[in-house]
Amino acid sequence: MSEFCIATYRSFDDKADFNKKALSIAVGLTVGSWTDLPEARKSEMEKHLGKVLSVDVHEGGEGNRYADIRIAYPDINFSRDIPALLVTIFGKLSMDGRIKLIDIEVSQSFGSAFPGPKFGLQGVRGLLGVQERPLLMSIFKSVVGHDLTNLQEQFYKQALGGVDLIKDDEILFENPLTPLEKRVEACMEAAERAQQETGQKLLYAVNLTGPTSQLASQARKAISAGANALLFNVLAYGYDVLHELSKDPSINVPIAAHPAMAGAMYPSPHYGIGASVLLGKLMRLAGADLVLFPSPYGSVVMPKEENLAVKDALLAPSSELLTSFPVPSAGIHPGLVPLILRDFGTDVVVNAGGGIHGHPMGTAAGGQAFRLAIDAAMNGVHLREAAAAPGGEALQAAIDAWGIKE
Amino acid sequence: MSEFCIATYRSFDDKADFNKKALSIAVGLTVGSWTDLPEARKSEMEKHLGKVLSVDVHEGGEGNRYADIRIAYPDINFSRDIPALLVTIFGKLSMDGRIKLIDIEVSQSFGSAFPGPKFGLQGVRGLLGVQERPLLMSIFKSVVGHDLTNLQEQFYKQALGGVDLIKDDEILFENPLTPLEKRVEACMEAAERAQQETGQKLLYAVNLTGPTSQLASQARKAISAGANALLFNVLAYGYDVLHELSKDPSINVPIAAHPAMAGAMYPSPHYGIGASVLLGKLMRLAGADLVLFPSPYGSVVMPKEENLAVKDALLAPSSELLTSFPVPSAGIHPGLVPLILRDFGTDVVVNAGGGIHGHPMGTAAGGQAFRLAIDAAMNGVHLREAAAAPGGEALQAAIDAWGIKE
Repeated sequence: MSEFCIATYRSFDDKADFNKKALSIAVGLTVGSWTDLPEARKSEMEKHLGKVLSVDVHEGGEGNRYADIRIAYPDINFSRDIPALLVTIFGKLSMDGRIKLIDIEVSQSFGSAFPGPKFGLQGVRGLLGVQERPLLMSIFKSVVGHDLTNLQEQFYKQALGGVDLIKDDEILFENPLTPLEKRVEACMEAAERAQQETGQKLLYAVNLTGPTSQLASQARKAISAGANALLFNVLAYGYDVLHELSKDPSINVPIAAHPAMAGAMYPSPHYGIGASVLLGKLMRLAGADLVLFPSPYGSVVMPKEENLAVKDALLAPSSELLTSFPVPSAGIHPGLVPLILRDFGTDVVVNAGGGIHGHPMGTAAGGQAFRLAIDAAMNGVHLREAAAAPGGEALQAAIDAWGIKE
Repeated sequence: MSEFCIATYRSFDDKADFNKKALSIAVGLTVGSWTDLPEARKSEMEKHLGKVLSVDVHEGGEGNRYADIRIAYPDINFSRDIPALLVTIFGKLSMDGRIKLIDIEVSQSFGSAFPGPKFGLQGVRGLLGVQERPLLMSIFKSVVGHDLTNLQEQFYKQALGGVDLIKDDEILFENPLTPLEKRVEACMEAAERAQQETGQKLLYAVNLTGPTSQLASQARKAISAGANALLFNVLAYGYDVLHELSKDPSINVPIAAHPAMAGAMYPSPHYGIGASVLLGKLMRLAGADLVLFPSPYGSVVMPKEENLAVKDALLAPSSELLTSFPVPSAGIHPGLVPLILRDFGTDVVVNAGGGIHGHPMGTAAGGQAFRLAIDAAMNGVHLREAAAAPGGEALQAAIDAWGIKE
């Protein structure tokens, strides 16, 4: 019995016969031709033929008439890897007029080739010993041109505030000032010192960069030097590279996927790949333990419904794949925490850069303000109340600086 | 002395102060912050700071006000690989509103890490022994679900018509009916038989697929089995993978880059990456010997100025990089050949699928019709005249079927 992977497209056209278009996609991207095949061949070829599952036409004004088209592609046609799947369902088709890939559902058989996240959301919680509350991640303020001492100091100050994860900037590549292994050693040493102060475990996601064929050995080097997490610019390398790194048993730390380059593909309504596929389903399938994506709050924006669709794709119940931790990023300050929890629930990583480093009382207070905001929101306490309570100064200062958004 | 890679963006905004925006990009994607740096640090950090080269504002009507912004990024900030370059110049920025990356100029120093095409246009001509005329490429009619005997027969018929290159369909992956090595053996055997008939050399670009880490060994297996060219879905794997394959001395055959997935990135005016960068400059830098891209003639369309910009990027004079053969594809029939030569010159591969297989007198006649059309166009003979001459029947039948476009 053959299984299918299903693609959903949004195809825009003021006049097209969308049923005919759907059929031409289903045939064209599988057996190539059908009606002119001899009957005897048809029975043999049937199992390779794509099937149109539905065509849902939305008559809109001129320029806005579209159809959502669902097509089932037989697994037998492609190997069990993401490049083969994408090239089949959206290789040539991506260039065929105004059409956007808005969903993918992989078959159980195709999916079985993907172990998915090695740690997943619960695994990351387990490593940190934090079961209930949202996690707090922070980002270095600036990294390019800084030396090890400077980075270590930045790291220590962030760690002191009680953050759970610190990530490299995605634009920090292998460089003579802060080479990978030395950077890991310096930062993990700072993490240890901070842990003695705070009693708080911490993951450092070091940026994995360089030639594709060297990534696995770079990852192992980082891990040998003490790295307990990795950051990876997935879209600059391809999903299959993430998949191979993630399923490598020697790379036994969580991988955080950075969305760099994603904006080249998801924002147009007419072209590209929907955010929930690009940053949701495919990242999880390829094995990302945490996935960063633009928050609906900051300067780097994504409409809230797309944000929630990404989150839903990362967290959807599955008997095959662990869930991936959603990390909505950009423009986050402590006064947003109750809103983030309302939008995303508690299985979320609150990720802040300026909201920590720009705190009026300093970086460590920036982390503390977030932790206070998270605890308040978890306990249903209003932020103003928590800020007014003894020990609430850091939160009060953050509210004074950035306000509360409700 | 520091060198720079330069990115040009088209940024759309009805109200923005584009000079301010340009400055925030130049600072934000390099040193992170500038004005609040102590003076003593500025002298150290200066060499890492991005520079705004120009901001060219086009006041258009609402929704169409934009600026072309050129920014120079110091090489010292990123490693010499395409992922690092792209993540730096368009990683986070791709998600920051309506902005499209429309050009990249790499520095000599950055470029020196890229040997580029191993064969290039002249190398491919050399392998085929064809110095002057446009080359003729053909594509299998349908491949999915077909066995070796069928593929071999399709191959032989195409080869008989005098084509120079035959390429796999990009959706033919490793499969039990036509596994890589057996496919190469069967097709190269057909190539040899056809060569005895036609006296014509032929390159077969077999589709290189599978897990990223296995691609180099798959390529070597294909070459051992007799493959004399490779087809590769570059964007499904990443430019760096092409770069590593291309510079591998053991992969000593030309690589044809397929544009699958490119339509997810180039067509929107507001988002993504321009075709001349995506399918032109970066493909050549990463080492593609031939590059397929949508022709301006067929169903899979790209505006002609973008086509010509891709072509120009592949052929631009360079003391560092060989040129890559432009292969405008889709919707090509013999009656278009004079137009193709007018648009693209003679350094072009005429690539046909239906225009060969759909020929009224059969596949071999399809190839012959194209070769007759190419010879006529090269000699300034009108196609109708060439078709009426003795031996012109195949061309006449093609003209009867599809007409001439001038």
